Amino acid sequence: MSVSAEAEVAPSSRDAARVRELANEIFDALRAATGDGVGITRASYGEGESAALDIIDAKARAVGLRTERDGAANLVVTLEGTEPQLPFLACGSHLDSVPQGGNFDGAAGVVAGLTVFAGFKQDGFRPRRTLKLFGLRGEESARFGKAYVGSSALFGRLSQADLAAKDTDSKFTLGQCMRAVGVDVERVEKGQPLLDPRSVAAWIELHIEQGPVLVARQLPLGIVTGIRGNLRHRVVECVGKAGHSGAVPRWLRHDAVFATSELISHLDHHWRTLLERGRDLVITAGIVTTDPREHAIARIPGTLRFSFELRSQSRETLEAFYDLFLSECRLVGEERGVEFKLDRRLEASPATMDAGWVGRLKKAARELGLPDEEIPSGAGHDAAIFANEGIPSAMIFVRNEHGSHNPDEAMAIEDFVAGVAVMRLALKEAAA
Amino acid sequence: MSVSAEAEVAPSSRDAARVRELANEIFDALRAATGDGVGITRASYGEGESAALDIIDAKARAVGLRTERDGAANLVVTLEGTEPQLPFLACGSHLDSVPQGGNFDGAAGVVAGLTVFAGFKQDGFRPRRTLKLFGLRGEESARFGKAYVGSSALFGRLSQADLAAKDTDSKFTLGQCMRAVGVDVERVEKGQPLLDPRSVAAWIELHIEQGPVLVARQLPLGIVTGIRGNLRHRVVECVGKAGHSGAVPRWLRHDAVFATSELISHLDHHWRTLLERGRDLVITAGIVTTDPREHAIARIPGTLRFSFELRSQSRETLEAFYDLFLSECRLVGEERGVEFKLDRRLEASPATMDAGWVGRLKKAARELGLPDEEIPSGAGHDAAIFANEGIPSAMIFVRNEHGSHNPDEAMAIEDFVAGVAVMRLALKEAAA
Repeated sequence: MSVSAEAEVAPSSRDAARVRELANEIFDALRAATGDGVGITRASYGEGESAALDIIDAKARAVGLRTERDGAANLVVTLEGTEPQLPFLACGSHLDSVPQGGNFDGAAGVVAGLTVFAGFKQDGFRPRRTLKLFGLRGEESARFGKAYVGSSALFGRLSQADLAAKDTDSKFTLGQCMRAVGVDVERVEKGQPLLDPRSVAAWIELHIEQGPVLVARQLPLGIVTGIRGNLRHRVVECVGKAGHSGAVPRWLRHDAVFATSELISHLDHHWRTLLERGRDLVITAGIVTTDPREHAIARIPGTLRFSFELRSQSRETLEAFYDLFLSECRLVGEERGVEFKLDRRLEASPATMDAGWVGRLKKAARELGLPDEEIPSGAGHDAAIFANEGIPSAMIFVRNEHGSHNPDEAMAIEDFVAGVAVMRLALKEAAA
Repeated sequence: MSVSAEAEVAPSSRDAARVRELANEIFDALRAATGDGVGITRASYGEGESAALDIIDAKARAVGLRTERDGAANLVVTLEGTEPQLPFLACGSHLDSVPQGGNFDGAAGVVAGLTVFAGFKQDGFRPRRTLKLFGLRGEESARFGKAYVGSSALFGRLSQADLAAKDTDSKFTLGQCMRAVGVDVERVEKGQPLLDPRSVAAWIELHIEQGPVLVARQLPLGIVTGIRGNLRHRVVECVGKAGHSGAVPRWLRHDAVFATSELISHLDHHWRTLLERGRDLVITAGIVTTDPREHAIARIPGTLRFSFELRSQSRETLEAFYDLFLSECRLVGEERGVEFKLDRRLEASPATMDAGWVGRLKKAARELGLPDEEIPSGAGHDAAIFANEGIPSAMIFVRNEHGSHNPDEAMAIEDFVAGVAVMRLALKEAAA
């Protein structure tokens, strides 16, 4: 009965209905398990992230798919192909989040892959190439500063210094937290690849757009052409001299707050100039704080700590602005009698998406009657790590209101379903 | 034996020796009891402050002086005069400190008074006017934002809003903390004076200089002419919009850190201009912090909270700069799409020291062969509260290196002894 009832429905609308149902079910489960009262929190290599992996894992097994954890403790769901010796097609995204983040950033890409694999399984479609879905850990890695940890670990791209980074509570190192969830830290710290890039035929990642472009242009989805890289310092410490706020005249002050304000204002002016010249750049100091152990209304702040991040699609722009940053630190420091102390510089390279896969995704979109417009990615993604390993990589952005990294992410399920349809069609053609 | 041995020593050097001995003993006891590993911490209406009062109290009783706690739970040490119906001469300072502060800020003035009274007692000097030494609470009041609480309470100058202010941990109100140490909060909250200003003939306060002027001018002490007032907001909240740092272009950002940096830079420019025009002013944002519950390297900071303080000897300059501050909040807010939300404005009036007492202290200094130079006070003091009640008030500053409100305060005991000598001589003449 059910087979004949389904057969009466047009394939595309039947696909849409089952994607919607399965996706809503999983998104609801994720929200329930990792809600924090404000948004959702899935700390990298922490409880919320592991809970998310377990939810996807259980659902994948429930629909008859094989699951495992790889050497970096990422979740891997496999739909075996008829020619498993061929390089496999990979898709997925990350399952961690920033604190008080949204439910879709990352998870949407994993849920997308699972609905595609579940549909193939249900339809009895057996691909020629094996398909693998990755539920990656540690992409945001907000508490360690180093992003894309789960994918970097796969390719032996984490350094000893990365693994020694302490979380924001200074309790545990990244290495300790990775070990606790089952990562093979011995291999990771030796820089050994856990996955041979040559075994991966492509990396396809669906992700909500984290900016306002698709909303502004009224497009349900976009095909990504390139991904910004970044340069970061987790902590820049401005060290001046504390003192009584009433007793030290301006010319004798070494005020860490006034110095840092001037530094940031100067950088803002340079930023505007570069934008006017058409360069791609964003600057962020997301964490700023005087020392809670000693700051007071009536005390000249002797130290201020802030995080610093540059993002650009151009490595040249990143390096040029970074030089400007160092120069301003020196200038403001000399003028104000303070010192800006920088911790280790963290880097993520910009990446270009694979032209062949961009074309394949656009073609799929057109065949489905959907827009096929291109869009650059302002944010970084695991796809950049795969691309920089030489793996042909591509991304589908799904429209999302209110940005991401906040609890108000708003992805319409119909836009998600459209994105999944494009991914499914392109994967089916490539795997067949 | 001991009497005859002392008699051989010149009175001034004998005085110096016993002041030095008693003062060192008390300073050591204070440091031992309220050290925090870095500096000393005597939280207003908290443990460290109460411990300091108890130490002075016990020492005063040990040398035969009468002690009590007044209605505001300040320590009062009395040396009764032969005509106790006359208005009494008051001296003293505060016994609280900022977190991780120094051992002398405040305490020096109380220890000074105790050594003078102890000396009078030992010498059998019975003044005509009663002398009272106050060990005041809550002058710094760093955790409540409102300064000079202990002296303000004496004169019924605390408002309901002052008493409702929560400490920085948001656990208790000022009123609750005052009640816990025995303050008669019922009378304080009705604005009833606990001390009639007409009963006080003068207020003399010895205090370390909190700025670098006496050190720079190589003077052991200075006679204070006036005290700066201040305007404060404990919390200014800059409210923008959080978002993914990579995904929102500059023109769509509502970044609380960049906005506040611009605001502070603008205020700094105005400050410089006013100083060049000869106005007296200092500006401080001693506490600055993004929201630890949600800030992250890769997140545009949606909110930033900072404290704001203006100090000047001129009420007009305070008000003029405050208007400029409000105007800049509006301008930067409009340009950047953020809002600066201000909590209740706190005020402390500037004060002028009593010309008669300034003259008396200068004369005493000259008679002792000490410099008698005048100095303004950049910091606020309880003396300003007494002065603004119409009580003739004066202050002696003692040289101190490295400023105050930090653990590195360095007052040489010989400078302290010199300051005590000036205070003793002037009090003796006035009380006789």
